[in-house]
Amino acid sequence: MFAEYDVIVVGGGHSGCEAAVAAANMGSKVMLVTMNMNTIAQMSCNPAIGGIAKGQIVREMDAMNGYTGIVTDHTMIQFRMLNRSKGPAMWSPRAQSDRMEFASKWRQMLESHPLIDFWQEMVTGLIVRDNRVYGVRTSLGLEIPSKTVILTNGTFLNGLIHIGAKKMGGGRAGERAAKGITAQLEELGFESGRMKTGTPPRVDGRSLHWDRMEIQPGDEHPNKFSFTQTPVLKNQIPCHITYTSSEVHDELKKGFKDSPMFNGRIRGIGPRYCPSIEDKIDRFADRNRHQLFIEPEGRHTCEIYVNGFSSSLPEDVQYKALKKIEGFEDVKMFRPGYAIEYDFFPPQQLKHNLETKRISNLFFAGQINGTTGYEEAGGQGLMAGINAHLKIQEEEPFVLTRYDSYIGVLIDDLVNKGTDEPYRMFTSRAEFRILLRQDNADIRLTPKVAALGMQGMEERMAQTRQKLDAISRIEHFARDFSVEPGLINPYLETINSSPLPQKIKLETLILRPNVHFEDLRPYLNPLDDFLNQESEEAINSAEIEMKYSGYIKKELEQAQKHKRLEEVSLGENVDYHKISSLSMEGREKLMASKPMNIGQASRISGVSPADISVLLVHMGR
Amino acid sequence: MFAEYDVIVVGGGHSGCEAAVAAANMGSKVMLVTMNMNTIAQMSCNPAIGGIAKGQIVREMDAMNGYTGIVTDHTMIQFRMLNRSKGPAMWSPRAQSDRMEFASKWRQMLESHPLIDFWQEMVTGLIVRDNRVYGVRTSLGLEIPSKTVILTNGTFLNGLIHIGAKKMGGGRAGERAAKGITAQLEELGFESGRMKTGTPPRVDGRSLHWDRMEIQPGDEHPNKFSFTQTPVLKNQIPCHITYTSSEVHDELKKGFKDSPMFNGRIRGIGPRYCPSIEDKIDRFADRNRHQLFIEPEGRHTCEIYVNGFSSSLPEDVQYKALKKIEGFEDVKMFRPGYAIEYDFFPPQQLKHNLETKRISNLFFAGQINGTTGYEEAGGQGLMAGINAHLKIQEEEPFVLTRYDSYIGVLIDDLVNKGTDEPYRMFTSRAEFRILLRQDNADIRLTPKVAALGMQGMEERMAQTRQKLDAISRIEHFARDFSVEPGLINPYLETINSSPLPQKIKLETLILRPNVHFEDLRPYLNPLDDFLNQESEEAINSAEIEMKYSGYIKKELEQAQKHKRLEEVSLGENVDYHKISSLSMEGREKLMASKPMNIGQASRISGVSPADISVLLVHMGR
Repeated sequence: MFAEYDVIVVGGGHSGCEAAVAAANMGSKVMLVTMNMNTIAQMSCNPAIGGIAKGQIVREMDAMNGYTGIVTDHTMIQFRMLNRSKGPAMWSPRAQSDRMEFASKWRQMLESHPLIDFWQEMVTGLIVRDNRVYGVRTSLGLEIPSKTVILTNGTFLNGLIHIGAKKMGGGRAGERAAKGITAQLEELGFESGRMKTGTPPRVDGRSLHWDRMEIQPGDEHPNKFSFTQTPVLKNQIPCHITYTSSEVHDELKKGFKDSPMFNGRIRGIGPRYCPSIEDKIDRFADRNRHQLFIEPEGRHTCEIYVNGFSSSLPEDVQYKALKKIEGFEDVKMFRPGYAIEYDFFPPQQLKHNLETKRISNLFFAGQINGTTGYEEAGGQGLMAGINAHLKIQEEEPFVLTRYDSYIGVLIDDLVNKGTDEPYRMFTSRAEFRILLRQDNADIRLTPKVAALGMQGMEERMAQTRQKLDAISRIEHFARDFSVEPGLINPYLETINSSPLPQKIKLETLILRPNVHFEDLRPYLNPLDDFLNQESEEAINSAEIEMKYSGYIKKELEQAQKHKRLEEVSLGENVDYHKISSLSMEGREKLMASKPMNIGQASRISGVSPADISVLLVHMGR
Repeated sequence: MFAEYDVIVVGGGHSGCEAAVAAANMGSKVMLVTMNMNTIAQMSCNPAIGGIAKGQIVREMDAMNGYTGIVTDHTMIQFRMLNRSKGPAMWSPRAQSDRMEFASKWRQMLESHPLIDFWQEMVTGLIVRDNRVYGVRTSLGLEIPSKTVILTNGTFLNGLIHIGAKKMGGGRAGERAAKGITAQLEELGFESGRMKTGTPPRVDGRSLHWDRMEIQPGDEHPNKFSFTQTPVLKNQIPCHITYTSSEVHDELKKGFKDSPMFNGRIRGIGPRYCPSIEDKIDRFADRNRHQLFIEPEGRHTCEIYVNGFSSSLPEDVQYKALKKIEGFEDVKMFRPGYAIEYDFFPPQQLKHNLETKRISNLFFAGQINGTTGYEEAGGQGLMAGINAHLKIQEEEPFVLTRYDSYIGVLIDDLVNKGTDEPYRMFTSRAEFRILLRQDNADIRLTPKVAALGMQGMEERMAQTRQKLDAISRIEHFARDFSVEPGLINPYLETINSSPLPQKIKLETLILRPNVHFEDLRPYLNPLDDFLNQESEEAINSAEIEMKYSGYIKKELEQAQKHKRLEEVSLGENVDYHKISSLSMEGREKLMASKPMNIGQASRISGVSPADISVLLVHMGR
């Protein structure tokens, strides 16, 4: 029934969607298999995209022609640039999405790609011969042949939902779990584990007292995710903030004895940075309140997401506790929160291109690798999609590094160190975060993907080049332009910045903390005239590059040093047991991980700096 | 966790949605329980509303403040008035819907009703004491108390999906079946049965050769369903027509040995008028082609519904046969067609208000009663919703009759005669179909529902009164206005209608077959000026009333005669066994059916005209 595909993507979530699009834009013939075409790109958890470090990942995906940013720009209902008061490395875009519109727009974009086909059914197994994958098997017993397969099963593999003492199979509330794949992969020698995540109750916005909560509106001048010409957001919808209290905690504690988290019924490890409310109460016993972030689910629905109140306590306990929250006194629930356990595969079993070490041409992306978050999933999907295509073409893998992207950090962390709890991205996970900013994702990554020949990159490259030119023009202008004290001192006074005793170059003035091009424009007509010709994106990036040039230079130098270690390849065939100067632990860990280069080796826990020196000597450096 | 509701509606399909809205608009506090809030108002089968007799039902629902017409008007992508070349009794509006938009709009309308609450979970049982229902039990073991319960479970009760030799539990492709309710109702003494329905494969529109099929565009001047001010459709999308062939049939026949229809694996009886393609080939062996109607699933999707190709043959047989269809040579499937078996409850177990005879305050509506079709389901849901409210208020049931509506015909047929195959409405099922036109549904039904005090009826009543006044003005005008031969004969000649020898009244001229007000306007200025003041709806209805006044009068008289029989009540306590002049069969059937009146008795199969005479004598007539 099916001709051979280049790439089969199993799963239509954030990872699967990006994987399908990336492979197709590389030129591969793609089959997306999903259990239900109506739930493609469902936001299973909160209706938001981006946030700290995650927003940077979305910008990186967009720079590489991923669609998450475009879809979000088209369907968001609120935008905020988080951490704007901090340094630009921390700026993180975040949007509230319209859940239904988000899924619908993704499906439209997938369907409009001529190289992506669809099949609605459960995949129950892989076609594997001689340690290579040749396609998938479905619940109807169909075989779909393919040169490569990308598994993006999310929480569906043997998904088990817990609410209090009750448990039921399911991949999401109201949806079935997927069976078969884990058992087959274990038979093939894969190690699997269980993880756990959770989701809060959904409630009826019509039953809430909004006036008793703090309002949190979107940015006055909302930005967007995509570097392309997507629409600018209008008519934002606010979120609200409220808090738990000791009364709420007391209600919740009544259910602790029935909690599957506390009585050992849930074995999987949950996300440390997105804990359930019962976890928070248990772990931070001294805190008598926790913040809740009340998110609208869309423009046309009264459904509300109670962010921060994830729970697997019995539904009546959830309900009684909710009612004690300020603003929630008359709350009506649509459905209780729940915990879900699912299978994952420790990601040290992958190469840096996300292909499994054990079965060639088989790729894993998303929660199946032990991550949490739409953005982390999408980033992996995109990389798996590109690499599946490159594998077929017998080209070099496309591997991002810790020096060029958060996605590089993510995959390097996963593959090198693995994870025993759901892995979430943070800015602190990156060594060189002033280099990995949201504003320069295009400059960092667009040329790399354009070089691969991906479809749709010409226009993006042209735009990136224009931006680079503009930045250089602005830097040039600032280097040449002298600021007259008389013109600018009145302004500097208003921001408590010391007055200029004499003319200085704009390049120097802009180094002062509170001084921004935008604010100078009313006082310096030639600057104003000049900047009128340049894009906001370029002005913003130029200012950051100039203001932080010292830090940026320092990080670049350090990165160069680290990078040199990456350039010393180790390859898969080094027998570390035979290098007698290595520590015993180092030998074992290196044999288990088979790092591609000394840089990777240096990040494996248990491999000491002394071991690294030994390796450098051994490899002839 | 839950305060007592007035009405719980179990199921969020077409029937459940209308039931919830009707009860809420009557003033009841309603809880809608659905297994998945994302699938509220899903079009499980083809993406279309209306059609022959079904379009009339939608107009009737709209006249009674049902929302199906409004939702359809907002989300349709094509409109056609079927049978326009036939008499006005046959005119039937039909729309292609955007499947996703339809569901989304319904959910918005439900959520915007302050008296409708929602709960997402599977209902697994009813709370019943002393033959009365007091609420429902859910899969989590929750109890939701309620004064009444309306079951609208569709195909979900013990749903079993068949594709070739494979079968799997499910309520729809990719969705779970519902368990528990059937067993409990059987224990309570209900008789249950199995029915079967089916759905065709969904295919990728990008893979079809549209130029090899006949195009079928929408009406040039698209009408709409609702009598209210809904938007007028713009930018229609066409359907296409193609045909099977003996090659297609030969391919399909190869799978007959594995067909669950033919080898007895499917026990339920399928819809006679919507048979599977294998059924059509089997039953009409002499026909070497069958028409297929190729329907788009929406404005922004390439998914296509192959109407007429419903099948439960093995998926590869479906695929190979599809490929032999003209225009489908390179078809790609999204998913195969399938058959689904589900539980229903023979509807003779219901009263005319759709309450069960056995358990008081429990109502059934939709496919659970053995019907097929969104419109049939919606009509029952609306009536059950109104009647659940009236039951709580201890008011008289609201029962439509065969003389005022297709919905009356539908419910009367179900309750009196039952059905052993999925019941679909046809114009031929109505005795008085010139009275039950799509154009006069508001005149027939709006006043009845307004009299019940339903919310939102004031405006509708005002509009209906305006329309009635306008019709009377138009009739008056036509009675008075004399048509000059010189002005109109040139036109009559163009339509081959004999010229007027002398002045006649417009009232007489309009009786001629091909003569319509609209066409006369260019020739008769005073008529044109006059009609400019009147609505299109009113002009249309007035013309029909005048043109067909002879038929209408005759049917009205007959209806009156029949109606008199309905007015002779029988009640539940008549012991027919004691009326010795009744035939033995008549006694048994009457005892089993317990008809409310002699009219109903006369329509029970096995009750003879002689039995009716006996009953009339017995009841004192």
